[in-house]
Amino acid sequence: MMDQTETKISEKEIYDGRIVRLHVDQISLPNGAEAMREVVDHLPGVSILPVKDGCFYFVKQFRYAVHRLMTEIPAGLIDPGETPKEAAVRELQEEIGLKPLRLEYLCSIQPSPGFLDEEHTIFMAESFEVSKLDEDEDEFLQIVKIPIRTARMLFEHGFFEDAKTVCALGYYFSR
Amino acid sequence: MMDQTETKISEKEIYDGRIVRLHVDQISLPNGAEAMREVVDHLPGVSILPVKDGCFYFVKQFRYAVHRLMTEIPAGLIDPGETPKEAAVRELQEEIGLKPLRLEYLCSIQPSPGFLDEEHTIFMAESFEVSKLDEDEDEFLQIVKIPIRTARMLFEHGFFEDAKTVCALGYYFSR
Repeated sequence: MMDQTETKISEKEIYDGRIVRLHVDQISLPNGAEAMREVVDHLPGVSILPVKDGCFYFVKQFRYAVHRLMTEIPAGLIDPGETPKEAAVRELQEEIGLKPLRLEYLCSIQPSPGFLDEEHTIFMAESFEVSKLDEDEDEFLQIVKIPIRTARMLFEHGFFEDAKTVCALGYYFSR
Repeated sequence: MMDQTETKISEKEIYDGRIVRLHVDQISLPNGAEAMREVVDHLPGVSILPVKDGCFYFVKQFRYAVHRLMTEIPAGLIDPGETPKEAAVRELQEEIGLKPLRLEYLCSIQPSPGFLDEEHTIFMAESFEVSKLDEDEDEFLQIVKIPIRTARMLFEHGFFEDAKTVCALGYYFSR
């Protein structure tokens, strides 16, 4: 079988910012030819599908990059030194004021592996205690509680467009 | 209900490349405060879940941004002037040598709406004629045919990590 590995020849950093780093690499292809790859490095993230009293909990948030309100499962970046589980517990307390007593691992995804190194881990939680942490200062969230049956209908009609949310619901509904 | 809209004050372009454009915007938050948003613009994409003779067809490809081989449904960028359906038909002919006779719309996703404007449309195809188009010069793909039952087991065990592939399979298996 052909070795498909692409090897870095050189890297040019374009930008190193708050949540993204952009670099353009010169690479060597499997056939020996050279090519260019634009790569965005992004901090890893976590999200959680909260299930409580027959409902899912979502957050509705204006997403500036896509210019609209999106209904998503609670999510956030993993802080330095945190495990994905620790980040998931913290984010759920910040965004919906519930502390999960147990997290079930659903899946890990690469949102856009053609150019983006981001890794995203998705959990599900079904038992909680009320415990609110302060939200991020520049986030304005609205909590949306949707009965599972309604969410399934919305899912089937393509209402959810956020990839991690669709992945989490796909796992949940395919069981 | 609170208006959650974030409004652009100014934009600074950092990079305008082949598949990505990076800009850093100063924005006005719903409470009147200002914040900074790093935004990556990316060309829109399409992907197709091909189902034939009880099997799914995947492509296995080295993804430089994540440093590993990924097993994904066939996918690609929408060329200027193409509709998502036209791009899907072309990509399937290029990547696996099958021309879909009919495309069923599954969903549209935003891979990472926190910073990325990319829109990705996913179709399913179940009838084909053999018709090969030339592949992109710098892509080295391996076609992988997996029986649906095996793919379901792999899906449940978290083998698939590419977001669009997980979304497509989640839709398929949740029906």
